[in-house]
Amino acid sequence: MAADIVGVGLIGLGTIGTGVAKVLQRNAAVIEQRLGFPLRLVRVADLDTETDRGVDLAGVRFDSDAEGLIADPAVHIVVELIGGTGAARQLSLRAIEAGKPLVTANKALLADHGGEIFGAAARRGVDVGFEASVAGGIPILRSIREGLVANRIESLHGILNGTSNYVLTEMEKTGEPQEAVVVRAQELGYAEADPSLDLDGGDAAHKLTLLAAMAYGAELTGKEIPTEGIRGLDPVDFEAAREFGFRIKLLGIAKAHVDASGGLRLEARVHPTLIPTQSLLANVDGAMNAVAVTGDAVGPTLFYGAGAGEQPTASAVVADLVEIARALRGGGAGRVAPLSYRPETLAPVPLLPLSEIHGRAYLRFTARDRAGVLAHISGVLGEHGIGIESVIQKGRAGHEGSVPVLVITHRADEASLRAACERIDALDDVTAPTRLVRIEEEL
Amino acid sequence: MAADIVGVGLIGLGTIGTGVAKVLQRNAAVIEQRLGFPLRLVRVADLDTETDRGVDLAGVRFDSDAEGLIADPAVHIVVELIGGTGAARQLSLRAIEAGKPLVTANKALLADHGGEIFGAAARRGVDVGFEASVAGGIPILRSIREGLVANRIESLHGILNGTSNYVLTEMEKTGEPQEAVVVRAQELGYAEADPSLDLDGGDAAHKLTLLAAMAYGAELTGKEIPTEGIRGLDPVDFEAAREFGFRIKLLGIAKAHVDASGGLRLEARVHPTLIPTQSLLANVDGAMNAVAVTGDAVGPTLFYGAGAGEQPTASAVVADLVEIARALRGGGAGRVAPLSYRPETLAPVPLLPLSEIHGRAYLRFTARDRAGVLAHISGVLGEHGIGIESVIQKGRAGHEGSVPVLVITHRADEASLRAACERIDALDDVTAPTRLVRIEEEL
Repeated sequence: MAADIVGVGLIGLGTIGTGVAKVLQRNAAVIEQRLGFPLRLVRVADLDTETDRGVDLAGVRFDSDAEGLIADPAVHIVVELIGGTGAARQLSLRAIEAGKPLVTANKALLADHGGEIFGAAARRGVDVGFEASVAGGIPILRSIREGLVANRIESLHGILNGTSNYVLTEMEKTGEPQEAVVVRAQELGYAEADPSLDLDGGDAAHKLTLLAAMAYGAELTGKEIPTEGIRGLDPVDFEAAREFGFRIKLLGIAKAHVDASGGLRLEARVHPTLIPTQSLLANVDGAMNAVAVTGDAVGPTLFYGAGAGEQPTASAVVADLVEIARALRGGGAGRVAPLSYRPETLAPVPLLPLSEIHGRAYLRFTARDRAGVLAHISGVLGEHGIGIESVIQKGRAGHEGSVPVLVITHRADEASLRAACERIDALDDVTAPTRLVRIEEEL
Repeated sequence: MAADIVGVGLIGLGTIGTGVAKVLQRNAAVIEQRLGFPLRLVRVADLDTETDRGVDLAGVRFDSDAEGLIADPAVHIVVELIGGTGAARQLSLRAIEAGKPLVTANKALLADHGGEIFGAAARRGVDVGFEASVAGGIPILRSIREGLVANRIESLHGILNGTSNYVLTEMEKTGEPQEAVVVRAQELGYAEADPSLDLDGGDAAHKLTLLAAMAYGAELTGKEIPTEGIRGLDPVDFEAAREFGFRIKLLGIAKAHVDASGGLRLEARVHPTLIPTQSLLANVDGAMNAVAVTGDAVGPTLFYGAGAGEQPTASAVVADLVEIARALRGGGAGRVAPLSYRPETLAPVPLLPLSEIHGRAYLRFTARDRAGVLAHISGVLGEHGIGIESVIQKGRAGHEGSVPVLVITHRADEASLRAACERIDALDDVTAPTRLVRIEEEL
């Protein structure tokens, strides 16, 4: 083997792993031309060495020995694509200890064990590439780290989960209930058998953790981020949102709040959000992802692409491989800073409590179709200082003779909204819990 | 001065130069944190040393001596922001000869003299950063070069000129004729006193040259790109486009055509284009820019942001400064490859003749409002193998009793379309030259 080849060892030959092998082979010539030397898959480890993945592994050592792969001197960079936080964590740490740079698409691992992984990498002075862990093929981490490096990031708004975006898009388009759409998504391969991590917002929270780390140097775990999924959204919500001039998207949101003395508090949250119909983000449909980033110099930007899938995710993995290979050959290893620009700047940042968030909101009340109900509801809202901007009340057959009352409020703080909804939900004529969906205006 | 400071010398303190000075000062702390060492403006040269630009240059040497700035040992990187291709060219070459990396936002210089500038930089082994020369603050060159490095780029579609996009957006919104909108754009500072370079497509062609170089290693000049501007578009075109399901954008388009033996021909053109209303690119309004890039692995992506303006352009200039400063300190100078990934791969690529382009088209005929005219027109189209997909013909008061006849054709090759239009324009009942606007479907 020529001395100037950079050898890649791939642990995990599932969908993404197969994609990485294909891209490295298909585009070997153009990657070598761009890099100046060959980047070659030299070894693969997977427990299943039998299944035909439709990729030619002639000349590539392929067995189930992940430890052997890490120790192999022909492997210069280790790619971890087995997923999960068990063996993936151990093998990732093992690779780092062996002084091998690591590339991973494992957002759960980094969101929950980022401190450990990045700490070990910083101590050992090896690179960790994780572009593929957020928004698939979109080069969003790289863009924040390099392209927008001159900026203080003011806000991030991301459609980070393709499955839930597909479900929301289909519910809006067809008027079907969520359950039916989820079944179809499962049939089409857009949703897993257990879609909880997608529909309940956990996957988006993992990714927001990594975005917030890259943009703000914030050390967060997914669990710290207030997270609300898309379950419980009803076809009537999409219809009403559209009439009010909005569409509904599951967003991961992070915003910097800087006080007079320069102290930073971070607003970070994941929830369904009403955003203006004419905004670009509102027009990101189906399983696609997009991240809107506002910087103090660049102003509003948006990055759009496929958030998942074999080839788009492989595109991001190979971009990390190229960057790390270049650093290895150029003697600049350790320059791909783990998470933040410099690992030592990654630090806990106080979170702004959700109760302090201030903005307009969409409220779906479910109430008996009876005179005076709207007056009652608006009275309670008024007592909490919440004004009503628009109302839609349509007589329609609901369960137990109830109708939805759909309201856009004026700007109010979340604590008041929550308190008012609690009181309203206790009213006799209110037959189901009120659904609150926050509005983001500035998109 | 501390030895670890990287010193920036700025030639040209106009709008962008002032923005660069402001960003380097305002965000000095965060940039130093991300970089690991200070990046500091140490010297400025401008012929006008009197005008107050609202930026504090205390501690910065400021005079009119650009040559002295280049020679100054405290200046490690030279930023050229004077524009034009005269002094800018000479000073850029001087900086390169002096072994100083160069950052520029000067698309005209690079589009017309890129071979000379990049050749000199390659020979001298210094970096040239030019992110700011295409699409302002959008990190599009960096994204193609790094984020999408694993891909063969299949196509690029860019809204690359904010002025013409503003004019198109306003014409569509207000129904006003172009002249009135251009006057307003000039009053608002969105258009220059002589808007030719923007409205006639020359500026977009310059930028497409640089995008094509980055994506395909193609050595092109702006003059080689078939270019058509937005003049001559009429309010009726926007109305008809909308009814047909399209919006009109001035696009820079580049596509790779690879033949069976792997030979590359490049399709490159700038012209007003009908694109589907629901595409993201169609929803990029006002003075904003966006570039849609399709790669063989990543699939469709889009990058959106401000294409001009003091702060967004400064964001891109400073991103280049950071990258080059990091390379200087890390001993990796010369790694920011001029134009393509490696300068020696920049080579002439044969262009696909416009006559070979194949697609649907929008045609606006202007004809006397007389029985049989449409039959006559469609007859000529049919003789050239061009089918009509949709027609809008509205009786309305036109000049000399003429009416517009608005047609979407089936797919046809450009040569046939041109030939048919020429014959139709010679018909007695046709009173003004036919306007052809190409359609891009795949967006």
